[in-house]
Amino acid sequence: MGMVGGGEGSMIGPVHRMAARLDGLSELVTAAFSSDPAITALTGAREGIDSSRLYPTWQEMISNESRQPEGIRPHFISIVTPNHLHYGPAKMALEAGFHVICDKPLCMSVAEAIDLYDTVERTGMMFCTTYNYSGYPMVKLAREMVLGGSLGDVRKVAVEYFQGWLASPVEKSGNRQASWRSDPARAGIAGAMADIGTHAFNLAEYVSGLEVVTLSADLHSVVPGRVLDDDGSVILHFSNGAGGTLLASQIATGEENNLSLRIYGEKGGLSWRQMEPNTLTAMWPDRPPEVFRTGTTFTDSGLAGRMHSRLPAGHPEGFIEAFASIYRNFALDIIARQEERHADIKADYPGIHDGVRGMKFLEAAVASGLSNSARKTV
Amino acid sequence: MGMVGGGEGSMIGPVHRMAARLDGLSELVTAAFSSDPAITALTGAREGIDSSRLYPTWQEMISNESRQPEGIRPHFISIVTPNHLHYGPAKMALEAGFHVICDKPLCMSVAEAIDLYDTVERTGMMFCTTYNYSGYPMVKLAREMVLGGSLGDVRKVAVEYFQGWLASPVEKSGNRQASWRSDPARAGIAGAMADIGTHAFNLAEYVSGLEVVTLSADLHSVVPGRVLDDDGSVILHFSNGAGGTLLASQIATGEENNLSLRIYGEKGGLSWRQMEPNTLTAMWPDRPPEVFRTGTTFTDSGLAGRMHSRLPAGHPEGFIEAFASIYRNFALDIIARQEERHADIKADYPGIHDGVRGMKFLEAAVASGLSNSARKTV
Amino acid sequence: MGMVGGGEGSMIGPVHRMAARLDGLSELVTAAFSSDPAITALTGAREGIDSSRLYPTWQEMISNESRQPEGIRPHFISIVTPNHLHYGPAKMALEAGFHVICDKPLCMSVAEAIDLYDTVERTGMMFCTTYNYSGYPMVKLAREMVLGGSLGDVRKVAVEYFQGWLASPVEKSGNRQASWRSDPARAGIAGAMADIGTHAFNLAEYVSGLEVVTLSADLHSVVPGRVLDDDGSVILHFSNGAGGTLLASQIATGEENNLSLRIYGEKGGLSWRQMEPNTLTAMWPDRPPEVFRTGTTFTDSGLAGRMHSRLPAGHPEGFIEAFASIYRNFALDIIARQEERHADIKADYPGIHDGVRGMKFLEAAVASGLSNSARKTV
Amino acid sequence: MGMVGGGEGSMIGPVHRMAARLDGLSELVTAAFSSDPAITALTGAREGIDSSRLYPTWQEMISNESRQPEGIRPHFISIVTPNHLHYGPAKMALEAGFHVICDKPLCMSVAEAIDLYDTVERTGMMFCTTYNYSGYPMVKLAREMVLGGSLGDVRKVAVEYFQGWLASPVEKSGNRQASWRSDPARAGIAGAMADIGTHAFNLAEYVSGLEVVTLSADLHSVVPGRVLDDDGSVILHFSNGAGGTLLASQIATGEENNLSLRIYGEKGGLSWRQMEPNTLTAMWPDRPPEVFRTGTTFTDSGLAGRMHSRLPAGHPEGFIEAFASIYRNFALDIIARQEERHADIKADYPGIHDGVRGMKFLEAAVASGLSNSARKTV
Repeated sequence: MGMVGGGEGSMIGPVHRMAARLDGLSELVTAAFSSDPAITALTGAREGIDSSRLYPTWQEMISNESRQPEGIRPHFISIVTPNHLHYGPAKMALEAGFHVICDKPLCMSVAEAIDLYDTVERTGMMFCTTYNYSGYPMVKLAREMVLGGSLGDVRKVAVEYFQGWLASPVEKSGNRQASWRSDPARAGIAGAMADIGTHAFNLAEYVSGLEVVTLSADLHSVVPGRVLDDDGSVILHFSNGAGGTLLASQIATGEENNLSLRIYGEKGGLSWRQMEPNTLTAMWPDRPPEVFRTGTTFTDSGLAGRMHSRLPAGHPEGFIEAFASIYRNFALDIIARQEERHADIKADYPGIHDGVRGMKFLEAAVASGLSNSARKTV
Repeated sequence: MGMVGGGEGSMIGPVHRMAARLDGLSELVTAAFSSDPAITALTGAREGIDSSRLYPTWQEMISNESRQPEGIRPHFISIVTPNHLHYGPAKMALEAGFHVICDKPLCMSVAEAIDLYDTVERTGMMFCTTYNYSGYPMVKLAREMVLGGSLGDVRKVAVEYFQGWLASPVEKSGNRQASWRSDPARAGIAGAMADIGTHAFNLAEYVSGLEVVTLSADLHSVVPGRVLDDDGSVILHFSNGAGGTLLASQIATGEENNLSLRIYGEKGGLSWRQMEPNTLTAMWPDRPPEVFRTGTTFTDSGLAGRMHSRLPAGHPEGFIEAFASIYRNFALDIIARQEERHADIKADYPGIHDGVRGMKFLEAAVASGLSNSARKTV
Repeated sequence: MGMVGGGEGSMIGPVHRMAARLDGLSELVTAAFSSDPAITALTGAREGIDSSRLYPTWQEMISNESRQPEGIRPHFISIVTPNHLHYGPAKMALEAGFHVICDKPLCMSVAEAIDLYDTVERTGMMFCTTYNYSGYPMVKLAREMVLGGSLGDVRKVAVEYFQGWLASPVEKSGNRQASWRSDPARAGIAGAMADIGTHAFNLAEYVSGLEVVTLSADLHSVVPGRVLDDDGSVILHFSNGAGGTLLASQIATGEENNLSLRIYGEKGGLSWRQMEPNTLTAMWPDRPPEVFRTGTTFTDSGLAGRMHSRLPAGHPEGFIEAFASIYRNFALDIIARQEERHADIKADYPGIHDGVRGMKFLEAAVASGLSNSARKTV
Repeated sequence: MGMVGGGEGSMIGPVHRMAARLDGLSELVTAAFSSDPAITALTGAREGIDSSRLYPTWQEMISNESRQPEGIRPHFISIVTPNHLHYGPAKMALEAGFHVICDKPLCMSVAEAIDLYDTVERTGMMFCTTYNYSGYPMVKLAREMVLGGSLGDVRKVAVEYFQGWLASPVEKSGNRQASWRSDPARAGIAGAMADIGTHAFNLAEYVSGLEVVTLSADLHSVVPGRVLDDDGSVILHFSNGAGGTLLASQIATGEENNLSLRIYGEKGGLSWRQMEPNTLTAMWPDRPPEVFRTGTTFTDSGLAGRMHSRLPAGHPEGFIEAFASIYRNFALDIIARQEERHADIKADYPGIHDGVRGMKFLEAAVASGLSNSARKTV
């Protein structure tokens, strides 16, 4: 694999690298980690990459590496830059014949997203958008239960994602993560909604198996001087008539990374919290709640859940493992294609479609937020 | 005390009676428990009420008891009927010189509510609306912390109240509680919003010390054949510019009585869940969360919290105790007035103003729900 | 009812009174609250007791009240004094024809306990020892599940009771509760083991339906200057060969009232914590854990659990309610006898046998503790 | 690194490999995975090891690899075999000049353990015993708080480790993990105490900074036909006079991997549970409990905790990450030695001393268990 972005000081770059390493299926062989060559050299040395394959720009990397012989050239490029630097490298990489793993949100606009979608279609390359929370075993199980009908018709989806790290203007005091996320030129049209709201949106659609058709949003820029939203509440209407809410905030003081999903159907309900990700609680109208857990061997725990667990029950698996499952599934899919067969297992991972959905959600939410929560189509 | 409603088969009647008994300050001496005299007789016998003071109608009870001599006549009347039977007995009781405890929502319309408000003002009698969740020690402490400035300016309030008991049309199979709650003639203009949404609304205003000024609501009647809402989501805008959400559902399959409040300010956040009511978690940007608990003696736990606890920490106090604190505070206030002094302690309890606020919330939420979530004034 | 002990300053006296009041079955009509007549007068006035029935000594109370006519005289005497004042009033009350509710531990020695047991047998009066934790709905359900065979043969019982309030020598700075509990003349041969260890012991035997036959104990007097144990660990051997542990401490700094029970059988396990008493978790080898909850209507939740709940699920019930169920069951049993019929429901409550078992446990634990944890017979 | 054991079907082998890979500091280059050459070949291929460096026996591996030139030969050998195959390869590897990471318990007897200890001393090689639970950030923080005096003198330690997977005789139906663990020839003198009790013992000594001096044990072989203990309770006496308990069971039906530690001192208490490892609760006598969390940046969270976290708070880290920290710290220590400097950071990991302590605990516990819980010296 090759990597664009993720040099020293990046938060998500090391996560991608640990995720790629965990299962031993992907090796980082080339990179353009930073626009600063010194940073690229430093990170490259730490990662043990041959210095001849460290590039000052992603353009050079993609261009040069695409001319490497089979067996040497990376199979895929991982893009872990701020949002404004997703579209360019993604498109160039696809056209140069690389599969692509790209961080979220996909890009800066629905127009860019559709262009990427078309590019994927045209080139036939594979694409993964790292909506990584879908990689948790209990999220897989939840989706399996919903699609398998355990809940009956879905009636209500409540997803929320609360953080507190932007409760004060840390972007003004040198916090690099905050800096680009609060800058429209690099983050795009939305702040919290882009950074975490899209994760929540993907989780809601992924587990429910439904699409959001319209929404009403209320967005706030709470911290004085901040241009983009740092807090918002969205009412969702799903394709089957179900209602829902998506709450996202980065000014929920004291919250860490509190993503949760509850989904209620005619016959049951499910509750999952990312901060204790190995537990999925199923609630029933006529019998006690059941507590499904990562790594148990019960036959009803589901194929999807078991396939994405690496340890026996009670040995906690976390964020890196879930992220690694995204990488592993993508790698397994690449291998399956190389071997001209279907993957033995359904190696699902969020793709270009999920990326496009995220951008449609963002544009609708921002439009609704600007017009007094008027209902907008997603 | 006297009681209107609450005969055999009532859910809330026995709760009011246990709450009144717990602290030994109120004695039930007269009642019109039911429109069915046999039920009134049965409940009256069980409660040990002299049969001469059991009445077939609340009109007769109020009329006759108002002529009882001081020392015999009850000090207050407790009204625990379905919603459509709040206004009449409340008004008559006030005008007959009784203090009144009335279940929520206050009545059937804002117009009725204002009329009751004016009646309270005019008669000078005391009035309590049983928004009982404000009686929990940790709710008192939360309010005390917010008003005392521990959180700084409030920025966000997320309140929700999820139940699942109406996920199927139980009103059609003889469930008496469901029957009147789903009937507009007895419940009023709203279903879930009236039954539990108003509790959530009161909790949000009580703890934040703020008023909601506008809202956007999305209401659903999920179960086929149901006329009133059984699920809804409301975006709130508070008087100080803070945002918020109020989610209420009675079709959240498998949920018991899941009321929770989170409130975030500039300097900290608070989280409270009714189903584990003795814990209040305070979250801070710069130090570990603190877990406040009912019954601890730490000086920072606050007067309000301590005053409303009856046991040492770790001896769980629950719903009945919180409800009893409403009764106790109301009784202490009556006693204080009798003794022509202010109560030694601030015996706070939800009053007529809270009742009016609840009705304004309901009318605004229903109006917004009927107009595609358009923003409405509360 | 009459009461011995429990004047102002008592912790457990008000609990007994609230418990007695909650269900409206018992009325406090006479008392000897304290050896200090002023305290008796004060508490008596607050409780609304006719001053002619307030006595300076329990001897006078029992003697005088036993001569009251039927209908006036109390049915039972509640003894809520420190341990050294249980045996005398209990014996005199029984012999005077009163039923007795007595706080735990039953008395000061196995010899006294057996004498009380014999007195109960001889007089035919009814006796309740307030091992109140057995009154929780989920404890009832746990016992029902164990006795009903849901777990198969019981193999292991782990009970513990951790408090922290005696982690410093508060008995030396005026804490009245600590003072008598750390004084052998008033507390007896044991400290923490008597005060809370016996509760844990009762819970283990009650839920398992087994008797402890031998034990090995390690007792500590951790706080300098303290004579009696304030911390201890006991290995238990049950009649059916099952093993177990009982851990009790009052120097577990920061713990509130952390009593918990886990019980494991061939086919399943149960876990219950007093500080969240409305949840009972059942664990199975071959399917997800189930979460049983107070107040649910599922048919498998058990008669015992349902009978001891007063509210729908999700409305937390606590310590006072559980204590009240002890009083209520005792009162129902008295009423049933008066009416010369068996109680409609199985009104179980801890009796004289439980009281004797607690004393046997205490003497065995202390003996083992004094001999290097040598195994002793209970 | 090289590996002994851990071929297909091993549970712990893949864990060691993921742990080694996560931080990119160790590369697996040689192995004797199994006594079955086909398995070694299969696992070797999956791991991408050059087939010339896969060996049929550990003797051959150590012998041949010790002759590889510097730069090619592995720096350390990881031993992940059943207990009876720890001593041999560990000793041979040390003497051949390899550092050693060895699974726990260290070996089969105290005599073997002391011999290994002496070998480490003599050869000067580095040694790690994978008591991996010490690798969790919150365990590091707990130790730091205890050693730093936050709790004052330690008075009580309660550690327990409950599993349920051996509640039925699965060793008789082909469960490979159960098979060797229940066979004295491969597991040694103890079952559950060796497999999990030693983990609990290490955790207690590591966090408290104290040594256990004597103990009284009660061991059970609950499942019929099982020779070794599958359940046990141990009373501990620490060097400073503190008391404690160690409970370990593999027949606690339904339990997953429930390791927990509570430690109480004069001034505070700590509670940690492995199944939610990112939370450490500190309890105080005079203020609310504080909840320390992995990944927070508060200055009081401690160097040790922060150093062992890879993600911002709220992004759960788990078992593999903690295990990886053991590998990373060991690798950092090797690198530091190579570079003839002290490690920049205190790269602590469990060493040969911890291994010896575990064996002493085991022999004492078994001896006490065989003699009616008589007190034995550790």
